[in-house]
Amino acid sequence: MDRLRPGGWIAGVDIGGTNLRVGMVPFEGGPPAAVVQAPTRPNGDPATVVTRIVAMIRELMAGVGGEGVIGVGIGAPGPLDRDSGVVLETPNLGWRNVPLRDMVASESGLPAVLDNDANCAAFAEWWIGAGRGADRVIGLTLGTGIGGGVVLGGEVYRGASDAAGEVGHMSVAFDGRPCACGSRGCVEAYASGPAIAARAAEGIARGAKSTLSSPVEADPSRITAEAVCEAAVAGDHYATHVLTETARILGVALANLINLFNPEVIVIGGGVAAAGESLFKPLRAEAERRAFRSATAVCRIVRADFPGTGGVIGAAGIFKRAVHGGVQAGVSASSASR
Amino acid sequence: MDRLRPGGWIAGVDIGGTNLRVGMVPFEGGPPAAVVQAPTRPNGDPATVVTRIVAMIRELMAGVGGEGVIGVGIGAPGPLDRDSGVVLETPNLGWRNVPLRDMVASESGLPAVLDNDANCAAFAEWWIGAGRGADRVIGLTLGTGIGGGVVLGGEVYRGASDAAGEVGHMSVAFDGRPCACGSRGCVEAYASGPAIAARAAEGIARGAKSTLSSPVEADPSRITAEAVCEAAVAGDHYATHVLTETARILGVALANLINLFNPEVIVIGGGVAAAGESLFKPLRAEAERRAFRSATAVCRIVRADFPGTGGVIGAAGIFKRAVHGGVQAGVSASSASR
Repeated sequence: MDRLRPGGWIAGVDIGGTNLRVGMVPFEGGPPAAVVQAPTRPNGDPATVVTRIVAMIRELMAGVGGEGVIGVGIGAPGPLDRDSGVVLETPNLGWRNVPLRDMVASESGLPAVLDNDANCAAFAEWWIGAGRGADRVIGLTLGTGIGGGVVLGGEVYRGASDAAGEVGHMSVAFDGRPCACGSRGCVEAYASGPAIAARAAEGIARGAKSTLSSPVEADPSRITAEAVCEAAVAGDHYATHVLTETARILGVALANLINLFNPEVIVIGGGVAAAGESLFKPLRAEAERRAFRSATAVCRIVRADFPGTGGVIGAAGIFKRAVHGGVQAGVSASSASR
Repeated sequence: MDRLRPGGWIAGVDIGGTNLRVGMVPFEGGPPAAVVQAPTRPNGDPATVVTRIVAMIRELMAGVGGEGVIGVGIGAPGPLDRDSGVVLETPNLGWRNVPLRDMVASESGLPAVLDNDANCAAFAEWWIGAGRGADRVIGLTLGTGIGGGVVLGGEVYRGASDAAGEVGHMSVAFDGRPCACGSRGCVEAYASGPAIAARAAEGIARGAKSTLSSPVEADPSRITAEAVCEAAVAGDHYATHVLTETARILGVALANLINLFNPEVIVIGGGVAAAGESLFKPLRAEAERRAFRSATAVCRIVRADFPGTGGVIGAAGIFKRAVHGGVQAGVSASSASR
């Protein structure tokens, strides 16, 4: 592979509760030339994690020829303050008010930007993925939570206080399952990985017959969304029921998004999307049954092109947009000298 | 009142299932100088309605000095095709594929534009009303149906096929009340005028004690949303319960909009909004309980400044935007000669 790029490279960083991923993304867009991964924990304190990230960036820089790397885009779970580059709170890691962007910029000597991980994933799919070039793209990441990002006219739609696009916290059942956010009936309370597992375990506790039963009876925490998906693929009726119901509820959420945003593409990534057509087929059918035909007719509902590295690619893309577009707000101080 | 305006006047037309309203709106924005109203029926066939509209425009033109009127904005219930100015279907009036814009333009001799009535109402509130000048405004009109309009950066957000902003058809109860649109649990199925009346009548049929009972038992069709609101104001417990439940469900819908769009203002108009604080107080409380604090903290939920004439004002505003902004698509042929 030709590692000399006229536009250079951008390091994309995706900070997950379990893994850190860093990749070298070409300035003009494209899959990362290389991706390295490391556990976020143990020792997930900010200083240690930053040192780990910068070591990963250096490792990749050596591979592409160091001086071609022009900056770092960082995607982190919110809430965060983009302008100051501070992670306000990360329940998964216990961080509070961490000036992550400037820590990475200072230790790496590269300018950096910080953004929400779900926004990064959605932006990646608009930039070079399944929603490439469409005017209106909504991205959902189905994982431990359900993240969302809305890309309108090639820009992440931010809202009045940078809080827009919280697709996972749209209620589709006003008296439904309680959600960690304090509301009820949120999509996340039904269709995140842990919610799928919990719903399956509850049904089994109520007597549902399933190949999932014996591990659950021994230890309910052993059931996972992956196990539900695998059992469904293997023909287990109850697991299929749980997955179909998940798809139905996601379909209702997507119908709402279609009636509100009338997008060209809805891109779904994250671990749960790995269930593939057994999830997507009933999901599409439900969305089409629910939303207006004039809107569903122009909307593709597709699996993410980059379910694993979208966060890395999108973080790099958002760095490019911030610098390239002349938008200096949210770029670390070290970029000012460029 | 000085009726000579340097920028001239725009006739705004609001076509409702019950009434036609026409008003003369100053080009630079402001409440209409005069509004006339006539029943849409009987003889609600398109040609008769157009003749009636043009007579109303002429009556108002005489009042402001005819040559100062530069065009006509028409708001009609959707679905419609803005580019060609055709009303595709109006279930309330039984219209199909009516080239309304060009009929009005030809008979009046004035250029015209056609848009969705709920978009017009939302645009009016952004232009000169309760959402004046805000970057992100969502308008809801609570009437026979629930119309919605989203105004971002001073433009109606249209979506990929002009189908966006259908706030009334967001489901907040995936297995809830059936909606005329074919889905279930839509906000409109709970909180439109007829839905409020139906819910009240159902409760009474199930034995709820209320001052509404005797008219309902005699003739269930005699119950209206207005009657429910009046009974609530008069202290009727069951009517208060129905209204509070309506507010709660609207609050869930607003929380969803806040988490998705993170707007500065949500403006609520239409007949049901006349219930005032007995609706708005529990509605705001529910939205604040449900949505993220960083988003609710910047969002005002307010009653429309122009609950009656918003459609008229907004239709004129959208004409201005279409002509003034150099956007020729969607302006009738007679504007080409201007």
